[in-house]
Amino acid sequence: MHQSENSAASTHDVLLRVRSLSQRRARDSAGVFLIEGVRQFLRAYEADFEFDTILHSRILLRNELVQKLVRQLIARGVRRVSLSPEQFRAIQTAERASGIAAIVRQRFTPLARASGQRGLCWLVIEHLRSPGNLGTILRTAEATGVAGVIFVGDSCDPFDPRVVRASMGGIFHLNLARASPQSLREWLKRNDVRAIALDPRAPRLWIDLPIDAPLALFIGEEREGLSAPLRELCEIGVRLSMMGRADSLNVAVAAGVMMYDLVRRSIQHSP
Amino acid sequence: MHQSENSAASTHDVLLRVRSLSQRRARDSAGVFLIEGVRQFLRAYEADFEFDTILHSRILLRNELVQKLVRQLIARGVRRVSLSPEQFRAIQTAERASGIAAIVRQRFTPLARASGQRGLCWLVIEHLRSPGNLGTILRTAEATGVAGVIFVGDSCDPFDPRVVRASMGGIFHLNLARASPQSLREWLKRNDVRAIALDPRAPRLWIDLPIDAPLALFIGEEREGLSAPLRELCEIGVRLSMMGRADSLNVAVAAGVMMYDLVRRSIQHSP
Repeated sequence: MHQSENSAASTHDVLLRVRSLSQRRARDSAGVFLIEGVRQFLRAYEADFEFDTILHSRILLRNELVQKLVRQLIARGVRRVSLSPEQFRAIQTAERASGIAAIVRQRFTPLARASGQRGLCWLVIEHLRSPGNLGTILRTAEATGVAGVIFVGDSCDPFDPRVVRASMGGIFHLNLARASPQSLREWLKRNDVRAIALDPRAPRLWIDLPIDAPLALFIGEEREGLSAPLRELCEIGVRLSMMGRADSLNVAVAAGVMMYDLVRRSIQHSP
Repeated sequence: MHQSENSAASTHDVLLRVRSLSQRRARDSAGVFLIEGVRQFLRAYEADFEFDTILHSRILLRNELVQKLVRQLIARGVRRVSLSPEQFRAIQTAERASGIAAIVRQRFTPLARASGQRGLCWLVIEHLRSPGNLGTILRTAEATGVAGVIFVGDSCDPFDPRVVRASMGGIFHLNLARASPQSLREWLKRNDVRAIALDPRAPRLWIDLPIDAPLALFIGEEREGLSAPLRELCEIGVRLSMMGRADSLNVAVAAGVMMYDLVRRSIQHSP
């Protein structure tokens, strides 16, 4: 396969662009995000994400499957920029220099096409401060068979590289949607989905959830929890019991406990 | 109450000492650790930790309860070093300058005095890379009524400031012990405690745990899991079910799900 070598000037431009993608504004205005490493590359490929530009260091990249997929993507017309190990190390954020990174198009599912009747449940996320917490929640969501995640407004960016990394590939296989409180209200009603708030002040325990309808689990900010308008959308609130002096839990742990309790019930109630 | 002002030279020495405590070697050789902020101060005080030196900025500290406790500790002979806001900000690691920090003595429970029959369960932690994961596990452990945590060998330091912070005060109210694999084996036998491995490769699901005896939940390293010698100490292994392409969970989420399933069963099986 013939490959015209990228010029020094165009390589320079791409490296500048890659660096800019650590900023949300640059990601959103171009509608792309950056992935890095073998795991993210394979997951994005499997999930049919659209590759914009592949950044590739032949010397560093050892994984043969990725090498093969890079060749396939180039054959389909995806741009590939070859980097020296030094150039690759200058852009990498992972511990190990994998030799593979890519600029990939962001993908949101339009809310109108998101079916409320599928999967373990939906998650509705209003705002989280910590990209690590958001990524961890997306990782657990994929592992428990959550149908997708609806972000209220645009305060959270699932395509932040720190979120992508903490999700361990989880973001690639989840439906990700954005909604206003109003469109969310309509979606819940149209899909007959019950809205459940995860709320440390709720009287009801997490194990006393109704399971007779599809659920959407609402998760609010680490310290403040859900805003009043979002809480009003919820039929029921549930909390995890707490002992000792503890007055809160890590939000990714609390969300994980809740998701796995739904898994437990689907196992224990299935024939 | 008369307070002789600390000299510039002694303040300088204390600030150097405080900085050194970010290093494990310095913490361990002196048997102390650093706490910072109102929450940590109150929790350490409530749990009767022994204060070595209080670092205090009168201008920054607003909390009246802490002010009162500082006066009480000084009256009991605890050394207090007054800092300017600038000096305090130079040592702080939290986002907000609380005006209160302290050097406190580390406290481990001797294994021989740790009763296996109390609390929700015990945790046994072999090694964790991430101080954030360890702290989050300790936070959940306190909230679920875990009796204590046994660290195998000395690879984990619960008094690392990053662990203390992520535990949100959890470390102050848990029994913390250290054990060799051999002394752990003897402790399990003497206390009639069943050792359970949290292990993604185990055939049994997390909801199929026996609950007829006190349990110790063994948690291994984020990627590698438990070492063979530790796994051999375990009677049973359990895993969380996983769907999709997920091949692992965040260890603090997995441990949290396990602990809360024990809480669920204690609620559902109690009269």
